[in-house]
Amino acid sequence: MSKSKNLILGVDIGGTKIAAGLVDEKGEVLFAERTRMIARKSSDQGFQAIRDAIALILRHPRAKEARAIGVSVPGWIDAKRGVLLSATNLPCFRDFPLVQEIEKLYGLPARLGNDANVAALAEAVWGSGARYGNVFYLTLGTGIGTGMVVHHRIYQGRTGAAGEGGHMTINYQGPLCGCGKRGCIEMYASGTAIARRARERLSEPGANESRMLTIAHGNIEAVTAETVSKAATAGDPLAAQILEEAADHLGIWLGNIIDLLEPEIIVVGGGLARLLMSSLGRIRSRLETWAINPRQQEVPIVEARYGSQSALVGAAALWLPVAKLTARNAHRAVRRAKSSSARR
Amino acid sequence: MSKSKNLILGVDIGGTKIAAGLVDEKGEVLFAERTRMIARKSSDQGFQAIRDAIALILRHPRAKEARAIGVSVPGWIDAKRGVLLSATNLPCFRDFPLVQEIEKLYGLPARLGNDANVAALAEAVWGSGARYGNVFYLTLGTGIGTGMVVHHRIYQGRTGAAGEGGHMTINYQGPLCGCGKRGCIEMYASGTAIARRARERLSEPGANESRMLTIAHGNIEAVTAETVSKAATAGDPLAAQILEEAADHLGIWLGNIIDLLEPEIIVVGGGLARLLMSSLGRIRSRLETWAINPRQQEVPIVEARYGSQSALVGAAALWLPVAKLTARNAHRAVRRAKSSSARR
Repeated sequence: MSKSKNLILGVDIGGTKIAAGLVDEKGEVLFAERTRMIARKSSDQGFQAIRDAIALILRHPRAKEARAIGVSVPGWIDAKRGVLLSATNLPCFRDFPLVQEIEKLYGLPARLGNDANVAALAEAVWGSGARYGNVFYLTLGTGIGTGMVVHHRIYQGRTGAAGEGGHMTINYQGPLCGCGKRGCIEMYASGTAIARRARERLSEPGANESRMLTIAHGNIEAVTAETVSKAATAGDPLAAQILEEAADHLGIWLGNIIDLLEPEIIVVGGGLARLLMSSLGRIRSRLETWAINPRQQEVPIVEARYGSQSALVGAAALWLPVAKLTARNAHRAVRRAKSSSARR
Repeated sequence: MSKSKNLILGVDIGGTKIAAGLVDEKGEVLFAERTRMIARKSSDQGFQAIRDAIALILRHPRAKEARAIGVSVPGWIDAKRGVLLSATNLPCFRDFPLVQEIEKLYGLPARLGNDANVAALAEAVWGSGARYGNVFYLTLGTGIGTGMVVHHRIYQGRTGAAGEGGHMTINYQGPLCGCGKRGCIEMYASGTAIARRARERLSEPGANESRMLTIAHGNIEAVTAETVSKAATAGDPLAAQILEEAADHLGIWLGNIIDLLEPEIIVVGGGLARLLMSSLGRIRSRLETWAINPRQQEVPIVEARYGSQSALVGAAALWLPVAKLTARNAHRAVRRAKSSSARR
């Protein structure tokens, strides 16, 4: 038996699944479970799904070592009040006091963070950005998310809504984004944008020899960013060109980020992280033009340590350093246990 | 006689002048002097000009109360090493160890900051952003500069070169900026840009009735941003339109800033601060479209407290909190005095 540790219960609430797990002080996930989060019509139903996910973890023999709960959500939060304001993919919650409800139910202190912001934190304390006090994290997938750690602390902004760098416009006359702005970097370099651009180009005359079509079994509509990536790796010139265009836009955007923030390190996560890393040479060459910072080439750009567990681990990281918690919560837990048994 | 205080000697090195002064713990400038900084050919000559400026302050009876020296420069620095790397308007300095030279000469600890970054700090600790831990500062003048305070501390970035938000592109297909990028916000909304746009519009047919021309005595080349401002105030429609265009671009840019950073407050300084503040309604209406943050309208946008002394005061603010300094430097000063008398 390993000796008792200070563990944190991390909960990553997504639009289609909830992941929960026990995370130790080194950022290792000891035990995690995933449950589905679908078609919840009310906040009661939505919260029940969260309880179900946590229940799976509480069965674990080491769950009693949990000192606190960290929760991440893909939406707008009020970090100070612990309220989930709204989330496009979680419509059942609106101004929902998530932290308060969880604290009441489990007798442990809880904290709330945005998924990309806490993923940045996970990378800064335990991942590829460890030992850096100032980390810019970007997650490339369907969309583009960003998060920051500054002075060794998560950067929340005024209410916890900072870090929407995916909707930084780099061309206010550019294509209309779903957010209402034009020319957001998401419109040029997200997985969705890369796939859309590929389908556009494949519809043009003369493109029917592209390997992308072979991979997609001739179905243009089935072409995804992964298709483009595979075809480019196999030497398809059109696919390579589409990835170069995305890289060029990422270079412009990262130039803005470096000029404004000069992070100590840029960490790239998300399902398409490797795709971005394969274009790093191109991105760096664009930075020569699109960043005025004279030492822009010195800023490391590295792949994230955490993949799909980044938000779960990051939610737990909201409670660092854990040591401080132990005494206080041991006390709290004892009180809770007493009042709970008194009620019975 | 007022009782002895902990004072900081602030030095603001500009391209054409050096300002130095004694700043107290409340951010009040007790005494300041300006000297000229022109045509220095070598770093020796440049440094002599800095010494001359400081010498004027050291004559002041209360100069002996100075506990430390803060220096600001309009250029690229390495904050940790205290080195002035380069500054377009101070070509005599290149990789110049400013902090080391000043510490050696005066026996007081010194720190170095970029002018816009330290101005942000001054506003955050003593100015319009006081009581806010997270301040975004922008200075509107010939160009556009930015600086940030995060978690109550100056935001330096990796080397001290963060805060070049004036060169964030909002349109990578836009007009070419002197920095080599296209569509920087400086190209749309700085004093230089506003004046250039006015001169362009005044050269078009039908514009010769504009009040801007009256104010400029018929000389298009003499039109400045101040001319545009005056004419707009007097009801000139073309001038008003030019300011609206600048405000529209500022709204797009501030939308990016709010989405990425969600500052607790935005503080506007520089010679054209009031011009921007007069367009605040227009800027806020653009933010409705150009910021996705659902609470963007709640972010206060206010005018700076410090005008032309912002960098001088900010340089002093690099040493906050002053209390910590007293014991250590009293000790240091005694040592210095001893070794100095031993040498004599």
